[in-house]
This record gives sequence, structure tokens and C-alpha cells, in this order.
Amino acid sequence: MKTIAFSMLAAVLPVVALADPLPSWTESDAKQQIVAFVEAVTDPDGDSYVTPSERIAVFDNDGTLWAEQPVYFQLIFAMDRLAEIAEQDPAILTTPTLQAAAEGDLRAVLEGGHDALIEVVNASHSGDSVEGFQATVANWLETARHPDTDLPYDQMTYQPMVELLRYLRDEDFKTYIVSGGGLHFMRVFAEEAYGIPPEQILGTYGETAYENTGESPVITKAPGVVFIDDKEGKPINIERTIGRRPILAGGNSDGDFAMLEWTTAGDGPRLGILIHHTDADREWAYDRESPIGRLVDGLDKGPDLGWVIVDMANDWSRIYSGAN
Amino acid sequence: MKTIAFSMLAAVLPVVALADPLPSWTESDAKQQIVAFVEAVTDPDGDSYVTPSERIAVFDNDGTLWAEQPVYFQLIFAMDRLAEIAEQDPAILTTPTLQAAAEGDLRAVLEGGHDALIEVVNASHSGDSVEGFQATVANWLETARHPDTDLPYDQMTYQPMVELLRYLRDEDFKTYIVSGGGLHFMRVFAEEAYGIPPEQILGTYGETAYENTGESPVITKAPGVVFIDDKEGKPINIERTIGRRPILAGGNSDGDFAMLEWTTAGDGPRLGILIHHTDADREWAYDRESPIGRLVDGLDKGPDLGWVIVDMANDWSRIYSGAN
Repeated sequence: MKTIAFSMLAAVLPVVALADPLPSWTESDAKQQIVAFVEAVTDPDGDSYVTPSERIAVFDNDGTLWAEQPVYFQLIFAMDRLAEIAEQDPAILTTPTLQAAAEGDLRAVLEGGHDALIEVVNASHSGDSVEGFQATVANWLETARHPDTDLPYDQMTYQPMVELLRYLRDEDFKTYIVSGGGLHFMRVFAEEAYGIPPEQILGTYGETAYENTGESPVITKAPGVVFIDDKEGKPINIERTIGRRPILAGGNSDGDFAMLEWTTAGDGPRLGILIHHTDADREWAYDRESPIGRLVDGLDKGPDLGWVIVDMANDWSRIYSGAN
Repeated sequence: MKTIAFSMLAAVLPVVALADPLPSWTESDAKQQIVAFVEAVTDPDGDSYVTPSERIAVFDNDGTLWAEQPVYFQLIFAMDRLAEIAEQDPAILTTPTLQAAAEGDLRAVLEGGHDALIEVVNASHSGDSVEGFQATVANWLETARHPDTDLPYDQMTYQPMVELLRYLRDEDFKTYIVSGGGLHFMRVFAEEAYGIPPEQILGTYGETAYENTGESPVITKAPGVVFIDDKEGKPINIERTIGRRPILAGGNSDGDFAMLEWTTAGDGPRLGILIHHTDADREWAYDRESPIGRLVDGLDKGPDLGWVIVDMANDWSRIYSGAN
């Protein structure tokens, strides 16, 4: 009889956390605000309760879930890939930008701005099937190492954020990536690295073509960017693809401002989280002046909008999932 | 002790179906093929087992999940809506096509072909926030009635397909709509009608804009079609949005051919289902010559590709969810 009574209690009482869900976070305000929010929206007896189907959480990737210095990792892949293609077919390097990229001259590519980035991505990301492209990315992730940390890039994910994603899913949130990075690129590692399946990844995408030339149909990557998932593009893509306004959004740069604004302007309980890169020792320190991950509006307006500003140096006891 | 043993058995044995999951299907080959497929891919001891995360099922909407005669229901909404707007602002009817549409002259609109349809949709679907537009659609669904059946349009869903969707979800499939119909239009009724949430609806979509003019940001519908989710667009949209190849696809017209082809050309067990409109008494009979839901390629090539051709008159004992 005692056993039955205990089972019944367990079924009706909220589950008591047996372990800290966020062990890589220090006991700071940031952690307390996040945990308080999650406990509030999941308490069926509270005023802030949110039904599970509405528990949508969206996160930027570069600089939010993994590192982004000295430049977006996907650009490093693009340059490595271009060099590899050019070994077989040097004629592909038709412009000074492409030549610089294949030589690994990052500064020259960055000086070319947005147009140069698109040019390098087009030349390195198209002309193969989606499956073939993704096998190439997977192979690169196996072998490439970050110039500063010597870690595989997919081990430079932030352990505190991996824990946050898991914590949210344990509390019946649906976790999404909404990133300026490439859709097909991210899908290669996001499920293993973050536990986020392909259908919950939103990103920038290029043209694809459906072709059936005989044996079996194939979807190929063609040149040309269709949609840039950055700035106002983020809430637009969320509305289009998810169709619900998230209740939690995390980002780190002004490219995420509109996504956090859209999320936190909704009715009811909302949480915006901005990762502030303040840790020059363990990671990098950058914000207002950085060409990558520039953060001005979020620092100026975020606090008044109630967003949690995460101070990496202070709030995270560990940085990378891979090592520290 | 007996109780415990029984619980353990229940936990390890496959659940035995207690009731027919498809009561509105007759005991035909079509039903048997569908049930055999679902049982095969969900049997963990069988050679055809498919892990739940890969159990993706995609369905066209118009003519597959609900009726589409005498014309796509969304076009009827568009014409009704245009008449309503023109009552307040007759100046909106700037062309003969728009005038015909506002007068309910369906034939004139259809004679204008694709361009006329886009014109009518643009004029009736833009200029409001997404939320405002969806409230208008919801109101229309409450009040509008089909000219032949006198049913609300969202009760002209096919009961056998509603059962199939539920059966698939009970077997841990994730069910999606992939339709040429408008994304925002479908999301108004699909969750209640089919149990399919907004994030699992893919459709044609127009431009949207993110605007924050002061108080609170809003996403508005602007004129202009961004993506037409039809023909080759369907597999392209599936790859882009879901990122996995489905193992089951259902459609009814040549607009669905590429989606079924892409689905069933994959490795392992696959199922393509084509709804053939053969029931002039209870619904409509049409295929090769119909301007709406034209079906030629599917009838010619589907059987050789192993697709199940559902003969509505023979295979369904009931048609509409609303009444029969």
C-alpha cells in the first residue's frame, strides 16, 4: 500500500530536479533568471504556465552555440574546400577573391565584404548533390582543426549552451537553431553536437534543383543565395517555418536583435538571452568593434527590454564541450 | 507477482491494436497495402524497421486531405475576401480580372490562368498582419458554405485520410502537409482538422515584412509570391525545411508527382499513395482532363513505381469528416 501511495504522489507532484541541469554555469544572476523562467512556464499551477506545444526556443549558432573567431567556421570550410577543388581544377579560381580564398588569405576575403563571402560560398558550396556536399563537410569536420585551440570545430560548441538545450528539451521545449550559417552545413553536425534534428534547423540557403536524369532523382546545390537568415530575416523565417512566436530566444550579435525583439515582444512570459563575449583568456573578448559578431544594439537596448546578458567570463565555469 | 509479470510483458511486447485504425476504409487492397507497410516499418524485429525519427510522412492537401472542386477552396476565399474589401474600397478593383473575381465570376478568373490567380491572391491576401489575415480566414471558415454540399469547407476533409494521419502518428510517424496552397491559409484550420501543427505545414508563401514602427513589432503580408510549393518545388521544399527524405507520401495530382517520386526512390521501405477521384456520386470524378487536380503521369507511371492507387468509390466507405 505504501508503494502505491508513493507512485501516486510521484505522478501528481512536479518532478524534483535530482541534479543541477546547468553544471557549467556559475551560480550567477544569469543562471537564476533562466532557471526561474523555465520553472515558471512549466508550473501547471502558476500564472505563467505555457502549454508544451508553445514552448518554442530558438538559438543563433555562430557565437551563441559554438565559437565564431577568428571568422565563421563555415568560411574556413569554404576556403579549405575551394583549395581542394582548385587542386583538381585550377580554372575555377576566376577572380582575385577566389584566388585569395584558395590560398587561405582570410584578410583579403574579409576586405571584399559581403560580395566576396557570397562568391566564395557559391564556388565552394554548389555543383554537388546535397548528400555529396554533406559528406564533404563531415569529412572536413573529422580532419580540420581550429588554428588557435587545435580542437575539431564541432568540439568548440559551448558546453553551457549544450546543457541549456538539453535542459529545455527535458522541460518539453522544442529547440531550434535559427542561424545566418548555411542550412546544409549545420545539419551535418547539429544533431550530434546539440541534439537538434534537421527539421529544427533554420539557416541561410542557396538554390537547389530537383533533377531526374534517369536512374534516380537527386537534389543538387546550385549557385545563388535564396534567403539570408540574418537580422529581420530571422523572425521572418521563424514565422514562415515554425509558425509560432518563440517564448525564448538566444543570440550574441546584432544579427540576432530582431529575433530577440520579436520573441520578447509577445504576450505572456518571454525570455531573451544575449551571450556577451567577455572572456579573452578562455575564448575571445569582442563586441562593439568586432567585424564578426558585432554587438551594439543588444548591449544598448537589451537590458531595458529585460534580456539576460550572459557574461561569459563570469557566468560560465566551462567554455567548450570538447575541452577547456 | 502476477501483476508485475503482466506489466513487464506489456512493456516489452508490441502493442496489439484493439480497434481498426482505418474504419472508413473498405477491406480493399489499398488498405491492406497501407497497413502492411506501417506494420513492417514499425516492427523492431523485422528487416524493414525504420527508426521513429525517420518516419516522415508528407501529404498534399487540396484533393488529398480535403476536396478541391469546383475550384481550390482558397480561391473561393480569395474571391469572397476581394468582394468584401471592394465594398469598402471599390478602387482596389483595378483590372477586369479583379472585377470578375469580386463579382464571383469563377470562369473568368480561371480563364485568366496562372497570372489571374496570382493577381487575385495578391490583392486579397496582402496588406494585413499575418495574425489579422488568419483571423479573417477563421471568420470565413465559420460562415462560408460550399455551393454543392452546403458544408463548411473545413468539414470537407476526407475522413479516411484524417484516420490515416492519426494512425501514422499513433505509430510514431511525424505527419506533414506539403501543399501548393497558402501556408498562412492552411495553418488556420490544419491543427484542428488534421492534428497537424503549424511547424509541420509546408506551402506556397508570399513576401512578408518585419516592421517595428514603435509600439511592438509586427509581421505583415506583402504582395508577391516567394515560393510556389508545387511539382519539383515540393521535394525542394521538403529537403529545405525537413531535411530528411520522407518514407511515405500521399497526393492526388501531377503536382504531387515529384514528391512521390522523390519519396519512393529512396532506399529501404517506401510508400507512395495516390488518391484517384472516381466517385461522381459522393464526391467528384476527375483525372486526366480536369483543370483542377489533373492526374496523368501518376496514373501512367505510378503503378509501375509501386504506388498505391486509392479508388475513392471502392476503397472509402465514407468521404467527408463533416457528413456524407
